Amino acid sequence: MAGAIAYISRDTDGVAWRKVLEAGLGPIDFRTLDTIGDKKDVEVALAWKPAPGLLATFPNLKMIVSLGMGVDHLLADDKLPTQIPITRIMDDGLVGQMSEYAIYWALRHHREIDTYAASQRAKAWKPEDFVDTIHRRIGVMGLGSIGQDTATKFAALGFPTAGWSRTAKTVANVETFHGADGFAKFLARTDILVDVLPLTRDTRGIMDAKAFATLPKGAYFINMARGGHVVDEALLAALESGHISGAALDVFNVEPLPADHPYWTHPKVHVTPHIAGATNPRTASPGVVDNIKRLRAGQPLIHRVDPKTGY
Amino acid sequence: MAGAIAYISRDTDGVAWRKVLEAGLGPIDFRTLDTIGDKKDVEVALAWKPAPGLLATFPNLKMIVSLGMGVDHLLADDKLPTQIPITRIMDDGLVGQMSEYAIYWALRHHREIDTYAASQRAKAWKPEDFVDTIHRRIGVMGLGSIGQDTATKFAALGFPTAGWSRTAKTVANVETFHGADGFAKFLARTDILVDVLPLTRDTRGIMDAKAFATLPKGAYFINMARGGHVVDEALLAALESGHISGAALDVFNVEPLPADHPYWTHPKVHVTPHIAGATNPRTASPGVVDNIKRLRAGQPLIHRVDPKTGY
Repeated sequence: MAGAIAYISRDTDGVAWRKVLEAGLGPIDFRTLDTIGDKKDVEVALAWKPAPGLLATFPNLKMIVSLGMGVDHLLADDKLPTQIPITRIMDDGLVGQMSEYAIYWALRHHREIDTYAASQRAKAWKPEDFVDTIHRRIGVMGLGSIGQDTATKFAALGFPTAGWSRTAKTVANVETFHGADGFAKFLARTDILVDVLPLTRDTRGIMDAKAFATLPKGAYFINMARGGHVVDEALLAALESGHISGAALDVFNVEPLPADHPYWTHPKVHVTPHIAGATNPRTASPGVVDNIKRLRAGQPLIHRVDPKTGY
Repeated sequence: MAGAIAYISRDTDGVAWRKVLEAGLGPIDFRTLDTIGDKKDVEVALAWKPAPGLLATFPNLKMIVSLGMGVDHLLADDKLPTQIPITRIMDDGLVGQMSEYAIYWALRHHREIDTYAASQRAKAWKPEDFVDTIHRRIGVMGLGSIGQDTATKFAALGFPTAGWSRTAKTVANVETFHGADGFAKFLARTDILVDVLPLTRDTRGIMDAKAFATLPKGAYFINMARGGHVVDEALLAALESGHISGAALDVFNVEPLPADHPYWTHPKVHVTPHIAGATNPRTASPGVVDNIKRLRAGQPLIHRVDPKTGY
């Protein structure tokens, strides 16, 4: 039998991954953190938030697979064996879930659902003036596979939609901006901002006081990327002043979000526990199966990550 | 100048309609209920929920325009002068709003947002197991322009989507059912039911105890069509038993919803005040302008309503 495949995550028991990998590869030597055995046997590590230093302890590791589309959880490990190829899942199911999350919160803001909920509590039949969809501008930060899917779906719903990325990109029906120069222009035309950027040296703290101030008054912020993008004090101040009308946050600088964090009880903040996009073994596994076959056949790997850019 | 155009509605002051009609037709004799003057002058009535008998009092009326896509508000008038052509708005803006409404509530149920809100109130970081989008079956009752747009957008989000209509229809990427025979099959495969049917003799009370029982256990109900479709006692009983897990209701047997109605305070019911789709003069007016020009030029009218079928 080929080398072992280690499932290195405490998020689930790994049974679903074992099933889909066996379906694609036949019998495998599948191990979890609890059944890891001799580390010399491990050839492939499927990893989500591995303990720092852990991946460096597998002497015969040949491929690291990030179980999330973001790889900051790996690159945060300063003992990460970067000479070993790092790949990441590409997961249409996760991508679709992320788009659902963004569309959900955008529609909640756009259609003033919280105002209607307050009217229901007061038993008040009170239609609000509506905002024409063509006047609600959506902006998606990050135009990788998630951002492109999200932006395209917003555009299909009739929202004027723009995207911003580090390097220039073209997306059908979406106005695109790029680079540091394009960032302020992008923010200034955005009523609902959706963050799907990777967390890199360049994007850490990108949503600071200046960025929030550049959004138009009343803008809404949806973060389904990484908490490290946000200077929390700046967001709280912008909510307090009313410049930002609300936020839906799925990710945080510290996770789980500490019990004493003001986001939990803030009337304008919706907190969800990093569930915008869950890795879905059904849709994520074909790429992983393909890469394990490629590894064993000595063929080039796909979905490679460049540790230098961070995605 | 040609005959007067009367705006017969108490929902808004009519200023927006006056503007878009003037933009399309040039100077017009535009009147509202408060400035109606000599009824003999009125050639066209733009009507939303006119007082019963009122439309019969305009002796020279040549066209009635329903300001809603549904015309039950006109047909409820037993003095309605049905020898006069009745047309209705076709409104892409309204259609888009309706789809937004359905998608919003479906995603709220699909993504267990209310469970996460309860966790936030408890400051509990508690990811729920997710339901794969391919396992959440959407069913849209009614496949006119609104139903087709709604169903198509759900399908584009990856939900297995079906539609049901009185007569057979074909919609790309949507499984279709029709007629009395198809209704039970359609309901039995539907986890989230979206009602966009017109209110007619055939559809009044269509959502009765039998229909709710035919849905799978835990199904969710979204009514953005007409309250008259629903036997309220049957829905309340199905919510009570847990067979129906929740409902988002925009329309009611009596509107405004009476203050003592149990829906207002029901923990599983979201009430909105008939706002799923507001007629949008920007998108609705081109068809109305076109019809007024056709009327004055003696050409055939478009968007005609058949009072017999009720749509």
